[in-house]
Amino acid sequence: MPDHLLKPNDRAVYFVSDGTGITAETLAHSLLSQFEGLDLHEVRLPFVDTVQKAASCAQRIAAARVTTGVKPIVFSTLVNAEISAALKTSDAMYIDLFQSFIEPLETELGVQSTHAVGRSHGAMDKKEYRDRIEAINFTLAHDDGVSDRDLREADVILIGVSRSGKTPTSLYLAMQFGIKAANYPLIPEDFERDAFPSALLLHREKLFGLTIDPNRLSEIRNERRPNSRYAHLDNCKYEVAAAEKLMAREKVAWLSTTTKSIEEIAASILQEIALEKRGF
Amino acid sequence: MPDHLLKPNDRAVYFVSDGTGITAETLAHSLLSQFEGLDLHEVRLPFVDTVQKAASCAQRIAAARVTTGVKPIVFSTLVNAEISAALKTSDAMYIDLFQSFIEPLETELGVQSTHAVGRSHGAMDKKEYRDRIEAINFTLAHDDGVSDRDLREADVILIGVSRSGKTPTSLYLAMQFGIKAANYPLIPEDFERDAFPSALLLHREKLFGLTIDPNRLSEIRNERRPNSRYAHLDNCKYEVAAAEKLMAREKVAWLSTTTKSIEEIAASILQEIALEKRGF
Repeated sequence: MPDHLLKPNDRAVYFVSDGTGITAETLAHSLLSQFEGLDLHEVRLPFVDTVQKAASCAQRIAAARVTTGVKPIVFSTLVNAEISAALKTSDAMYIDLFQSFIEPLETELGVQSTHAVGRSHGAMDKKEYRDRIEAINFTLAHDDGVSDRDLREADVILIGVSRSGKTPTSLYLAMQFGIKAANYPLIPEDFERDAFPSALLLHREKLFGLTIDPNRLSEIRNERRPNSRYAHLDNCKYEVAAAEKLMAREKVAWLSTTTKSIEEIAASILQEIALEKRGF
Repeated sequence: MPDHLLKPNDRAVYFVSDGTGITAETLAHSLLSQFEGLDLHEVRLPFVDTVQKAASCAQRIAAARVTTGVKPIVFSTLVNAEISAALKTSDAMYIDLFQSFIEPLETELGVQSTHAVGRSHGAMDKKEYRDRIEAINFTLAHDDGVSDRDLREADVILIGVSRSGKTPTSLYLAMQFGIKAANYPLIPEDFERDAFPSALLLHREKLFGLTIDPNRLSEIRNERRPNSRYAHLDNCKYEVAAAEKLMAREKVAWLSTTTKSIEEIAASILQEIALEKRGF
């Protein structure tokens, strides 16, 4: 939302970071989601890694203060104390997600922090970076059962009916956690045979099921193929019941994605995997 | 890292959340990355949404305190004050990423917070959720130039030589920001013709280029196809120079991915897009 659209009484919110600003914004959203009925004008200001850039942010914040007549709220994750000070020269509410904690941490750890800018998402750790890229490539190559090759390399294989959330969850697991997540659809042919696809039988210990409320599934499928047999509620009910029956019989852990975000599904799977067998 | 592997003098770090814990962990990593040479044992404890679960986390933290002889560090994002209090009963360093800021925000906003658990990544906002899933599907369908269809629906089209980072960046843009990001490779045939692929000419205003240091590119390609012409440094130099020349002539904005993380590339693109034309 550009600042020139601000009106009197609007509440401007800025996310200021020397890196991407994604962490600041995510935590800020989590805090702000606790307040209902707010109309916020949010602006992301990433890569503020010099005093000059911080000063120009401060000017922008000051201008918003004048236009709106209301104190802007500024969430910041600036590592450098000088840059942080340059930001905090305007009349605003500053929530410093970094400086607030760095000193207590220095005391507890008995070590000085390095105050190095832009480290959090840095590509410093080449191995971690490569693992993530490799996981993403693996996940893409094993989306929707397109390939059975190298399934033994998978950290987890998600199964479930079409549109139960397998693809976005697999990609999130790969992207955020570097987990090689394959996914495999359960389709009407499997239900008729009343058995998992044969490629999966070798990897039963890696399977994790996603299920979904048939009403919601029918809604989602109708958006893609309106009025199809595929999307019809009766068919959705049949497929979900058959998939759950199969997973129960084969003792595959599963969860329902109906009311969950991608992050929640991924974190739940990770927790199950960690509890059950592997070391994530 | 399971707690039974803890040894005397280890520093245990817990990320405790009533949601996924991803935000707590990300901000904690950003704080901890400021301290060098620490050997940390990190444990994610998500979905702590009852007093009982918090009490059992507190027990686990107390046990780690005894085993290691060192105060564990606990990063938490617990919305509910009672649950948060139940967590904080052990001898540890607590960094409360939520309660620290919620009261000052209540004061500034003049509104009581709802103290609703697990809202930050909740699937409440169905539209936002659907936009993300749609963006992911679009991005998958338009990865690596596989389809020219509906390119006009793209928010951005990333271009660059093979292995310059287009696919992970596109997926991250879709996943994190709900941006429909297509990507299209620039290949030797394009360089011989000295022209963009014709499908792109209609969408010039959506193009954004990724480039990469030829040495790094050669490294990456060698991992996939060792000793190939494709991976040879001379060929990488030729492709990168030709791609940059093309992008310069066609006035396409670009950035180098060589030392950047996926998050940094995505945030930089977003900033360019916002500055240049569209309203993200």
